[in-house]
Parts: sequence; structure tokens; C-alpha cells
Amino acid sequence: MNRETPLIPEMLTGLYTDLYELTMIQGYFFEGKKEDTAVFDYFFRTNPFGGGYVIYAGLENVLHLLKNFKFPQKALDFLASQGFREEFLKYLQDFSFRGEIHSAHEGEVIFPNEPVLRLEGNLMETQVIETLVLNILNFESLIATKASRIREAAGKDTMIADFGMRRAHSIASMQAARASIIGGFNSTSNVAAACMYGLSTTGTMAHSWVMSFGDELTAFRKYADLYPDKCVFLVDTYNTLESGVPNAIIVAKELETKGKKLLGIRLDSGDLAYISKKARKMLDDAGLEYVQIVASNQLDEILIRSLEEQGARIDIFGVGTKLVTGYPDAALDGVYKISENNSRPVMKISENIQKMTLPGKKNILRYTNDEGKSAGDAIILEDETARINEFHHPLFPEKKKNVKDMSFERLLTPVMEDGEIKIPIVPVHEIADYTKQRLSKLDDSHKRFENPHVYKVGISEKLMNLRDRVRDEILK
Amino acid sequence: MNRETPLIPEMLTGLYTDLYELTMIQGYFFEGKKEDTAVFDYFFRTNPFGGGYVIYAGLENVLHLLKNFKFPQKALDFLASQGFREEFLKYLQDFSFRGEIHSAHEGEVIFPNEPVLRLEGNLMETQVIETLVLNILNFESLIATKASRIREAAGKDTMIADFGMRRAHSIASMQAARASIIGGFNSTSNVAAACMYGLSTTGTMAHSWVMSFGDELTAFRKYADLYPDKCVFLVDTYNTLESGVPNAIIVAKELETKGKKLLGIRLDSGDLAYISKKARKMLDDAGLEYVQIVASNQLDEILIRSLEEQGARIDIFGVGTKLVTGYPDAALDGVYKISENNSRPVMKISENIQKMTLPGKKNILRYTNDEGKSAGDAIILEDETARINEFHHPLFPEKKKNVKDMSFERLLTPVMEDGEIKIPIVPVHEIADYTKQRLSKLDDSHKRFENPHVYKVGISEKLMNLRDRVRDEILK
Repeated sequence: MNRETPLIPEMLTGLYTDLYELTMIQGYFFEGKKEDTAVFDYFFRTNPFGGGYVIYAGLENVLHLLKNFKFPQKALDFLASQGFREEFLKYLQDFSFRGEIHSAHEGEVIFPNEPVLRLEGNLMETQVIETLVLNILNFESLIATKASRIREAAGKDTMIADFGMRRAHSIASMQAARASIIGGFNSTSNVAAACMYGLSTTGTMAHSWVMSFGDELTAFRKYADLYPDKCVFLVDTYNTLESGVPNAIIVAKELETKGKKLLGIRLDSGDLAYISKKARKMLDDAGLEYVQIVASNQLDEILIRSLEEQGARIDIFGVGTKLVTGYPDAALDGVYKISENNSRPVMKISENIQKMTLPGKKNILRYTNDEGKSAGDAIILEDETARINEFHHPLFPEKKKNVKDMSFERLLTPVMEDGEIKIPIVPVHEIADYTKQRLSKLDDSHKRFENPHVYKVGISEKLMNLRDRVRDEILK
Repeated sequence: MNRETPLIPEMLTGLYTDLYELTMIQGYFFEGKKEDTAVFDYFFRTNPFGGGYVIYAGLENVLHLLKNFKFPQKALDFLASQGFREEFLKYLQDFSFRGEIHSAHEGEVIFPNEPVLRLEGNLMETQVIETLVLNILNFESLIATKASRIREAAGKDTMIADFGMRRAHSIASMQAARASIIGGFNSTSNVAAACMYGLSTTGTMAHSWVMSFGDELTAFRKYADLYPDKCVFLVDTYNTLESGVPNAIIVAKELETKGKKLLGIRLDSGDLAYISKKARKMLDDAGLEYVQIVASNQLDEILIRSLEEQGARIDIFGVGTKLVTGYPDAALDGVYKISENNSRPVMKISENIQKMTLPGKKNILRYTNDEGKSAGDAIILEDETARINEFHHPLFPEKKKNVKDMSFERLLTPVMEDGEIKIPIVPVHEIADYTKQRLSKLDDSHKRFENPHVYKVGISEKLMNLRDRVRDEILK
């Protein structure tokens, strides 16, 4: 399947934006700012789920959508009907995004206020795609982060599968499946997403299968006839422990006579800790130690951790609603802010000091300590080349972090130049491998669900000085 | 714009399903159930947001997607790679949904356990589209319901606009915008959704506009030059009351000399109750009583109600994140359950009595009392024609509702026959009008945010008898 299959109907690509972006760029067009340049940053302000980090996801989709951001005639006709002017529409007719983008690696572990995506180019081009960038990155990063927490709770050897398609926010199920894999899931039930993004699939049976055969034993037998090598029986249609598990055991024994093994049973209701232990014992007593127990039903990282603590006997978790919707958080609060205009550093000053932005073209350095763990990130100016020995807390400059002898790496590298994608589009599982490796560098204290240790992100002295100078000029 | 523009890339339509649906229908195919028939119901179990009702939305998208549910060669190739068998793939090659669908009117006010969508036809066809139906209806209904609550809080004369595109779950922004209008919103900032669904648009300016001109006054003046008839100034880039509002007043006065009127100012941070009152006074003192105040920033129905109670002076609300994500609920818990198989009524019995389903081909009667208000709904068997005088509580049959002399209407009517859409595709605002009218029939006690009065939904005696008979047969 073509990875570039558009997520958005071609006719709508250029219109996939907030009205004010188009109103503003028409303004720039007629106000002599056609040739202005700008730099914009994407960053978020708060870790979701009360957690200590975010997994950065969605980059590949953003790049494809930017490459296809056009205004076909029907889109122009619609804009004409909305009062946009002819001369401007003529400009849009030939519109393409020709900017330059630097980004962190997709799957990177990132933190609040870090400018993980930096767009440079024509002001109109970099402005109009704001909504698109936010729409994609905010969602995929939210879900990848949720998935990584569920992986953390389930432990590294337990299988976890995305079962959320029916409760996802409609078509967002596609990106939810992709982001789940990046965050550490093994597979998805979503066939379209598996096809589009090359993901592993998972699926068992529904209650309607069992009911369509009238009785459970027949339903299991029929399924085993057809899929002797990949049978997972849903055992709670009538009564899990009195009917479902005993019938599964009968069919497992019949499979054994044919040299086959029942893969598993699935629990989808009731007290999963209690029932899984009972079911495990029934299976073991029947000599079916190899049959795995799959559990689903309103799971999330908190419930999975609780099940693990109670000694539940579950080998595979199917996680749906709370994964694909990023419950209980509504969204990642990512924003897109201008930091340079015609090579002049700019910033936003807000009533709320936390909402103050950082001016200038920036990059991020990540430091590694002696134990190989990530020790802190410094936001620096892109053109800073001299090694820095310490960085400052963004709001309390007297608080410093010493990084004198630590090794470091630069997180932002070029991913798009002149509107062309400059990185290879790799299989999603390679991004997932990257995330896994990067998470292993993050101290466990930052991964705690309750009150995680805050990872240190500061700013270089040069950036601090620039910020203070620009701020003072504005306040004057 | 073509309303049938696919929400899902054509190549993927048939794959837009959970793997187990395909696994099961392959099972039916090889188990001699190719010609089996089935009836499935869509219903939800719990009102979201702790509220008293749901607005049913998404029907139009479901019908279009069912009409386009196909398996192109690339989809078949993918399924072959997943181990599906050749004979079955050949069947899928010619697959189309040829079933019959009865549905409540899109925009209807609906309640837990009501089978608002009923699908009949070939078992394989009605099974494989389960995930699709759930994926679309659960989401659009969630958002339409949220929107109607926000409309309730804002009051009927206040403008409310969807500003949520950047925080929506990616492409779900399209359906979120549509569902918001159904629930009572006036407009959206989402241009693609406006174009696709014929919605009104709204948009102002971003901080980057103000910042790109270096100073706020110039930025406002330039905008006023360009858009003298639709100026709304974002006034919080530097300092709302000390800079933004005074500059807006200067430009408003300049517009007056040209015979133009400033439409409004927008507040996007700070204490909206306090600032809106201060800003209103400044505008009024300057003789600008006509300038409207737009407010946005993390709003929802609870905050809007609180602002109204505090006497905030806000004329237009822009609502984003919490609208388009349905915060704080993850999803509507809609399900899709088989109720007949080869004309034999079937049901699911669960450990959890609440999860027991209703067998048979059903419809819903809605009763109206003397005051013209909806007085209760009875779920009946489709072929019941005799007038019923009372209906029963589904779990406590001795609890009855008398509806003897009440007028009533039948909620489910045919919307698809032999796979063809049988209802006109009407403008979204007509669906919104329908919702408004239907909500006006619902007593205020059911619309309360806290502890709403539970609307009575019961079952007819015939349905109750059928259910009990089928249940007893299963338990035997």
C-alpha cells in the first residue's frame, strides 16, 4: 500500500486549515508582506496524563500533507464564495510549501517548551500550515505517549494490542493505530491502518459469532475447524467460568488430537483479576498451560498496573477506548509560535509568564550522564557552536544545570528543504524501536505515573540574553 | 463541493474494519452461512457527560461509507498477505452492502438502550460493517451532544463557534465541525469542513499577525484597511486592558470616520469574567456599544455557564478543545448487537444484566403529553401494530408507564434499501433545525447538567415476552 495515500481528500488539502490563517495570509499578501520570511516553532506546554514526558509522533504525516498542500480549482471556488479576492486566489493557485523544516526524530522523547519542529521560509507559507501541523502532531503525540505508558504498566514482555477502532474519533483511528505502535504496542485490530502503515494485526471473534451458531461449543468447534492455528475463543457470551472456559477446554483437547494448540481465550467482562486466576487454574488443571489469556474491557495503564499488582494471570492485553482517545486528557496542548520575522527575532509576551515564547532560530541539545542516562536538555540558538558548560532555568535564571563534561547530541536535523522531504520514510516499527531505545535512556523517576520527577529543560545564556533583550524592547 | 467526497481513501474503504470482522465473515463463508440473514441494532448504554440525552449524528456519513464499502485489488492483495483464502477473496471482490437500514432521523434526541439504527440483510454483509458504523456514529453523536450542552449554557441568542481544529483528533476535525453545527453551533473555523459540508465559517487573527507588524496599533490598522467590514481584533498579544483594548478603540474610531464599524474584539487569556466587564466599560465609554466581545480559551459548558452567572459581557464564544474532543468523556459507548439470525430472534446474556440485549426486529415509539413535551419512549417489535396502553421498565417489569391517550410517532424509518440511500441528503443546518425543534420538546429537567431527570424508556409487553422466552431458552 502506498504510504502517501492521502489522509485528507486531495480536493481539501489546502483548505485543511482554520479560516484565520487564510484571512491573515491574504492580509500579508496585500500589505506588502508577500516576500516576508518567518521562523515558527512547534512545542507543547504541559505533559499529558500528569506524566513526565511525551513521545513525539506524527512527523511523517505532517511532511506528506505539507507536500500535498495545494488549492485545486474547487477549493479556490469555495474561497471565492467566502469573499477572498481574485488576485490572492491567483496566488493560491500556484501555492506550494517551499519551506525548510528541522525536526527531532519521530518517536523522540520530548519535554514541555522544547521547539521540536522548526519551520522556516516565506511568511505566508509558514503561517497557513499552522493548523495542519498542530492538528496532526498534537494527536499522534498524545496517543504515542499514552501507548508508552500502557507499555510501561504491562511490562516489556506482555503483548499489547490496539482494539480501539470502534471508539476512536472516527477516521483518527488510522493515526491512533500508527501512534500506538510507535509508543510500544505490538499490533492493531484496525485493518486499514495495518495496510496503510504496515502494522501487525490482531483479532479474535465477537459475541455475534458465538450467537450465530446457537450454542457456544459448536461456535468454538467451527472456529477451530477453520483457524486451527490461530484460535482465540471469546468465552464470556453466556457465562465465563461455567460455560465459556469449559467449552474452550473441550475444543482445546480436540485440537490436541489433531496436533494443534489452542492459542488463547479472551475475557471481556467481569472482574478480570478474579476470573483470569480462576480460568488459569481451570486451563492448567486440564493440562493446557500453554493456552494464553487475553483480556480486554475498558483497560488503561492504571488498571493494567492494578491487575499486575493483584497477580492477574493475563498474557495479552487488548486496549481500546482509553488508548485511542488519549483518555482522560482531551488533547496535547501543542502550539505554533512565530520566533523570527524577516530575520528579526520576535516573541510573545503574555499576561501569563508561562506563555511567553522564546525568540530566534533554535535547536535542542540533549546531555547524557556517566550512567548513559539523559541528564537534561538545553534549548540553544541554532548558530551557537561553542560548547556550553551550564544552562539556565527559563524562568529562574539563577537556577543552573552544570553539563560541563557531559556528551551531548543535537536533536533537530533537517527533514524538509524547499518543500521536499529529506528523510527516508521508514517502517513504523523502526520508529518504535527508536522510541524504545530513547525511553531506556530516560530515568525511571521521569516515567512514574504519580508525581514524576521533572526532567530539566533550560536555555543557554545566549538565548536567555536574546530573550531578555527582545522582551525589554517590547515592554519599552 | 461534493458531499460524497470520501472521508476514507477509496483504496481503504473495505478494510476500514476490525480484523475479527473479516475473520468471522470468512468463517461464515466456509461454514455454510453464506446465505444466512441477520438483524443488527446500534444503540448506546450511557448518556455521556453525566447528561440526560444524546443527539444522534453521523447517519449521512455512515450511509455514504456503506455505499462505498468495497475491496479494490490492493485491499485484496493485503488480505491475501494476511492469510485470507482465495475463494473468500473472490467473494470480497464483488462485495457490496445490499442491506436494508431503518434509522431515527439524524439529529434526533435519543436515549440509552434505544435501537436507533437497525440493519437487516445478509449476515456477512451486516457483520463486516460493524466497526465502521460504530466508529462514525459514536464520535459524531458524542460531539453533537457536547455541542448541544454548550448551546444550552450559552443561551439561544449567543453566537457560538467551533475553534477546535488544531486540537481535534486529527482528521476527526471534519466530523467534529459538522456535528457541532447539528448540536447548535453557528459556525466553524475549519475551512475544509465548511467547504465539504456547507457550514458557515468564522475566523479572526492570530498573535502572529500582531507580532509580524512589530506594533499592535499598526497591526490593527492594516487589518482594518483590508477587512473594514469584518474586523475582530485579538487584543491580548501584549496587555489586554492597557494596550489591546485602547488600540482597538483608536482603530474603531478611525473606522467610524470611514462609515465603518468594528465588529468585535477577542479575548483569549486572563480572567474572562473580569476582563470582559472592564473591556465592555472601556468600549462603552468610548461610544462603541456596538462592538462585540468574543471570548475563547479552554471553554466548555460549565465555564460558559459560570461566566454567564458572573455577568461576564461576552457576545460570542469560540469553543475548541473541549468541544471537538468531547472532553471529559472519551467516547460514546455505542454498541452493535445481533438481534435476529435467519429470522430467529437472538440475544446476548451477560454476567452483567445491564448488558443483556433485546431480541427481534424493533422500532421505537415516542409519546407526547398534553403540554407537547416528550413523555417517554417505548421500544416495540417492528410488527406490533396494535396501540399499546403502557410500557414496562426493561429490568423491573412491574414498573409501568401509562401512555393510553397520548399521541406518538414511530422513530425508525427506512434510510437504505438494497444498499441504496433512500433519504435526501439535506443541508446540515436543516438537521440542526430538526435537533433544535426536538430538544424544545424535551423537558428542561432532562437537560440539567447535574443529576438530570432520567427520561423513561421502556419495552412493550410483546417485546418483554419475547425477550423472556429467548432468555429462558438460552438458560435452559
